[in-house]
Amino acid sequence: MAVYTEVTDEALAAFLTLYDIGRMVAFRGIAEGVENSNYALKTTTGDYILTLYEKRVNTDELPWFLGLMEHLAAHGLSCPLPVRGLDGGNLKPLAGRVAAITTFLPGVWPRRVQVEHCEPLGAALAKLHITGAGFAPTRMNALGPHGWAPLLEKSLPRADEVLPGLGAELTTALAGILAAWPQNLPVGHIHADLFPDNVFFLEGKVSGLIDFYFAATDIYAYDVAVCLNAWCFERDFSFNVTKSQALLRGYLAHRNLDAAEQAALPVLAQGAALRFLLTRLYDWLNTPPGAMVTRKDPLDYYRRLRFHQHATSEAAYGL
Amino acid sequence: MAVYTEVTDEALAAFLTLYDIGRMVAFRGIAEGVENSNYALKTTTGDYILTLYEKRVNTDELPWFLGLMEHLAAHGLSCPLPVRGLDGGNLKPLAGRVAAITTFLPGVWPRRVQVEHCEPLGAALAKLHITGAGFAPTRMNALGPHGWAPLLEKSLPRADEVLPGLGAELTTALAGILAAWPQNLPVGHIHADLFPDNVFFLEGKVSGLIDFYFAATDIYAYDVAVCLNAWCFERDFSFNVTKSQALLRGYLAHRNLDAAEQAALPVLAQGAALRFLLTRLYDWLNTPPGAMVTRKDPLDYYRRLRFHQHATSEAAYGL
Repeated sequence: MAVYTEVTDEALAAFLTLYDIGRMVAFRGIAEGVENSNYALKTTTGDYILTLYEKRVNTDELPWFLGLMEHLAAHGLSCPLPVRGLDGGNLKPLAGRVAAITTFLPGVWPRRVQVEHCEPLGAALAKLHITGAGFAPTRMNALGPHGWAPLLEKSLPRADEVLPGLGAELTTALAGILAAWPQNLPVGHIHADLFPDNVFFLEGKVSGLIDFYFAATDIYAYDVAVCLNAWCFERDFSFNVTKSQALLRGYLAHRNLDAAEQAALPVLAQGAALRFLLTRLYDWLNTPPGAMVTRKDPLDYYRRLRFHQHATSEAAYGL
Repeated sequence: MAVYTEVTDEALAAFLTLYDIGRMVAFRGIAEGVENSNYALKTTTGDYILTLYEKRVNTDELPWFLGLMEHLAAHGLSCPLPVRGLDGGNLKPLAGRVAAITTFLPGVWPRRVQVEHCEPLGAALAKLHITGAGFAPTRMNALGPHGWAPLLEKSLPRADEVLPGLGAELTTALAGILAAWPQNLPVGHIHADLFPDNVFFLEGKVSGLIDFYFAATDIYAYDVAVCLNAWCFERDFSFNVTKSQALLRGYLAHRNLDAAEQAALPVLAQGAALRFLLTRLYDWLNTPPGAMVTRKDPLDYYRRLRFHQHATSEAAYGL
């Protein structure tokens, strides 16, 4: 579900006068995305996406996200290009929210990840890292390692409701991960949430990357570790090393991972698993049962974390 | 929310080979509609809607619905045209469901009904009735007056949980409505669910009618009464007679309502209010709190019913 804010036709018509994208032809809510309200907007000049940023998004940070997307699109990466209004701005108020129009990307995200998706995905991630390097402003990763202890603390009193002993186990795991966290790896802009539903494919090729609202300036190899978590586990939580080899092969064809980056993959992958475990755990404990949101099971990432804890070197990922 | 069934990209690709509509360009779940799963599908030949029929739909009845839509579209009414596959059929299995592709309609449904919407809506309803008359097969209205007593019976034991005394009051109201139900009014194919979210407008004109899955062969004026309920009440449940006059003016410009049809409007409107009250009441009492569906308050229609019970003649609607 991803329409939290309804837009009246009058408000939409008034909003469109602020842009030079033609007259409205169609407007439909999209049942994808989790944080924001998204609409497919068709005008006489083409297809667009209208996004209304909901409460969990810090609107002060939107110019950075849209700036990054604009930079990436201008340099040839297929991602949503924020459309500028007649006044030159790309963020405007609508229906009590801040809203943006972006270009529409072709493709479909893979509901069932196949080995064939992983090499192009890895290549697209490397291209994102390389292309993003030219964008000067930085953004601290609020959901990076510094954010994990406070996040865990909020869930700790009730963590054992999900699994007996979970609180103590996560406390130990977090301490170990932070102690081993690499300090001098190459850093740049990362997507930080490149799950399958944020990657469109068309005829076997990546046709676009979307949803840059967790992007930040952080360790490049951490972004690889996020993708290892998101793309390489099967439904039974077994790790498919053929997929990770394909993902890394695609990445390495465009951007090198030096020895230190490769050696750090197990702890980076533990950190990535913990990061998604912690936000899911918080949501699980704090989403009222009647809410119109699918609560995602935090234990899916507990199982991934356990796998990475047993990875003694990058060889676990097929390197 | 209206994506209950996920379609894998492989299943979609295989499905599209059964049609001559080009190659897939994009595929997004639509957050509209209640009963079925709907996707916006873009191919190299244009825009379509892919619908997967969910469990509440009796698939044996789908050929009638699609036949009616095909008839209406062929005779100039703007409604989704079911696309026939290479084998000539317009219903095919997909992801464990029966699915159909229809053409995409321009326009946007009015989130906030204005007086200006009501005359074109009335005209569109009359045109639907006139155009549908050439379609020979009939379908009994399962949610017509014969269906209301069994529907009420299912909710009766718990109706007072919603409002003390509601069960007794609805029992009395139903008996009165059925006793007064008109027997010899003109009958034909009606939409039976023409709410604002099923009517697209573009630049002040109706650009399309959708969602024919409650359509049936029943009293034409009952369809008018459904629209009086759906379009002419304000958010505070006051009745806006300027809207009903506009709606009826639009209707009468294309199809006459004879004296008997006009005189029956109060009881038809009571029946229409009761019909939506009963299905909402049932859903309210039987939707688990965690379900991904917005439960609609049945008492919205209790208030409408009360208005119509005080209508002593068609003059209440501005005639």
